Amino acid sequence: MRVLLVGAGGVGTAVTRIAARRDFLTHMVVTDYDLARAQAAVAALGEESSRFTAQRVDASDQEAVRRILTEQCCDVLLNATDPRFVMPLFQAALEAGAHYLDMAMSLSAPHATRPYEECGVKLGDEQLQQAQRWEEAGRLALVGMGVEPGLSDVFARYAADELFDDIEEIGIRDGANLTVEGYDFAPSFSIWTTIEECLNPPVVYEKDRGWYTTAPFSEPEVFDFPEGIGPVECVNVEHEEALLIPRWVDARRVTFKYGLGNDFIAKLKTLHELGLDSTAKVTVPGQDGPVGVSPRDVVAACLPDPAGLGDRMTGKTCAGTWVKGTKDGAPREVYLYHVVDNEWSMREYGSQAVVWQTAVNPVVALELLATGAWTGEGVLGPEALPPRPFLDLLTEYGSPWGLRDQG
Amino acid sequence: MRVLLVGAGGVGTAVTRIAARRDFLTHMVVTDYDLARAQAAVAALGEESSRFTAQRVDASDQEAVRRILTEQCCDVLLNATDPRFVMPLFQAALEAGAHYLDMAMSLSAPHATRPYEECGVKLGDEQLQQAQRWEEAGRLALVGMGVEPGLSDVFARYAADELFDDIEEIGIRDGANLTVEGYDFAPSFSIWTTIEECLNPPVVYEKDRGWYTTAPFSEPEVFDFPEGIGPVECVNVEHEEALLIPRWVDARRVTFKYGLGNDFIAKLKTLHELGLDSTAKVTVPGQDGPVGVSPRDVVAACLPDPAGLGDRMTGKTCAGTWVKGTKDGAPREVYLYHVVDNEWSMREYGSQAVVWQTAVNPVVALELLATGAWTGEGVLGPEALPPRPFLDLLTEYGSPWGLRDQG
Repeated sequence: MRVLLVGAGGVGTAVTRIAARRDFLTHMVVTDYDLARAQAAVAALGEESSRFTAQRVDASDQEAVRRILTEQCCDVLLNATDPRFVMPLFQAALEAGAHYLDMAMSLSAPHATRPYEECGVKLGDEQLQQAQRWEEAGRLALVGMGVEPGLSDVFARYAADELFDDIEEIGIRDGANLTVEGYDFAPSFSIWTTIEECLNPPVVYEKDRGWYTTAPFSEPEVFDFPEGIGPVECVNVEHEEALLIPRWVDARRVTFKYGLGNDFIAKLKTLHELGLDSTAKVTVPGQDGPVGVSPRDVVAACLPDPAGLGDRMTGKTCAGTWVKGTKDGAPREVYLYHVVDNEWSMREYGSQAVVWQTAVNPVVALELLATGAWTGEGVLGPEALPPRPFLDLLTEYGSPWGLRDQG
Repeated sequence: MRVLLVGAGGVGTAVTRIAARRDFLTHMVVTDYDLARAQAAVAALGEESSRFTAQRVDASDQEAVRRILTEQCCDVLLNATDPRFVMPLFQAALEAGAHYLDMAMSLSAPHATRPYEECGVKLGDEQLQQAQRWEEAGRLALVGMGVEPGLSDVFARYAADELFDDIEEIGIRDGANLTVEGYDFAPSFSIWTTIEECLNPPVVYEKDRGWYTTAPFSEPEVFDFPEGIGPVECVNVEHEEALLIPRWVDARRVTFKYGLGNDFIAKLKTLHELGLDSTAKVTVPGQDGPVGVSPRDVVAACLPDPAGLGDRMTGKTCAGTWVKGTKDGAPREVYLYHVVDNEWSMREYGSQAVVWQTAVNPVVALELLATGAWTGEGVLGPEALPPRPFLDLLTEYGSPWGLRDQG
């Protein structure tokens, strides 16, 4: 299998390190807007680097991406950029006749008049509307194939197939106990993206009602995370799972709650109240007179780069799927989860835990596509495909998942 | 009396409106870095404007200020700029043989190794060290003569002279219930200055111990403010009164607590934890490539200009001095205070409440100096002079003070 990887940031770099250990990969073209980043990712692979080449590409330039896919005879495009670039990359793959994987879906737009009650353009709508074109082309766009969305969706399908007869609710729950030495506050992921997803109206699915939105940070609950992480306050956040799971799995309710914790929520609210989450430029004094800058860029610039914090980070991150329903007539409740200890991911891969946990899942999916264990056409979520092979291969990668029966 | 007013911002503009109604003023030269601001302040005075002229001056240019004082034969310089310009203006007045008034004192610098225990350079130290030069010149520098410091210091002296035999503690307490329509969050005063004073180590005076510092926002207490404002959480903040009052008034303890409220304190802490209070530049994308900007400037640019909010503001602001001690052998506790209702100050003067309350006090002081009710030489705080004439004249200005006996 020949893969075009677009984006050699934290997640893209971890993808190369994980894929380099697997035989299914014939060649990976590692690309980035910053060629030096792509080259650094390849160089770090040492003797395994022969199967990798680095190249510069602008992810927003659909035609340039299509050309590389064709010239390099790539079977699949793996998108490891931020969600602003989903649509040009998705289109480029279709035009080149390649399969496509990403870890976040096309962006939403809030409802014009009732943003906290009704959906406007939903996450992924732009992609899912093109399902027929992908089916006709006989190609697969496997969307939302990171850890969340991604592994969380695989867990949902696994629960429906093997653990439950009837599902009342599926709730994705994400929490961590990561701390970073020497910083009062150092998010383990992009603050720019966190602001985007946390301040958008969260979306909830109910079978009787369809999809609807609520206010940011709504319905707080304390969820007890496994493997020593413990209780963390979780709130509704806009996330792909609430859109994907109901399309392939039968459940009366689907939610996503993020264990931001009180402190982080308060900080995000403050940024919003002060207008510092805005991307609209404000005018401030610069060296040579007034300059226009985006407040959200300034917030990001004041914080350390999350991908570079692995060495100073301690703790674990947990992604998982809580399911409530019945089996053989009896009530049942489980939490299917995947925990990564930063100490382990740094030692094994030199990658920070959150970044590594995101990166491993699309590599597992690529391997299943390469071996034919997974096949498909159209635009599919991870829950459209058989979960067992995925979960078994993830364990084979040295990163087992867990099940907590809490019924 | 001929006065040079330096600074025609919110407070300076309110000074012109208050002084225009009083006969003691022969002439006021209104100056600002931005000539248009000075001209606008004068033009707004209508038929009273004949006693006022506008002129441009750079407050940091000591020699230029001295020249204007001499050329315009000014008896006194009233400083209505921010504290960065205290020292050049203070020196210019001394060199020109003029008296000097300000509303904030020379800036502090924290102790190098124990910032939250010991004082470094204290607020006002630079000015007070020059007391002898002012005495020798037979001129008066009346420092900290706004509302806080200013009226609050007059209250302290009044309490010592007329209400107490022995004072255990003097605590300045400042609180408000101002809200601004159409904004989640809109401070009624400069956020730049608020960050400076609130994030510096607060200073406390104790007779046995002298001056010492504590951590920002230390010793929270709920203080019940009069005239319907009600209870507000107050915390220690670095302020001039704790430095001035013990020099002229006998008290075992002097504190300053600001009714920031939980919400405002949390916001300031968040700005600090995110590094957004910093004045050191960070690099962000600009229109034509990377630019360096100060995060604190960006925070200020995201918020509305406090001086322009009067029309959308509702509520009252209270400045005052709480005193605990004994009188005639019995314990006594009073709160001496001054409340301004924004609705009243907007109607009467077109000035927002916080700005007007600051501006009225130096005008009262100028009138007392003009009539000879107040005289002095050297560098003095408001508590060095007899309080009665000041309090009576403030009432005559239509803005009475109050006393709450809470013993």
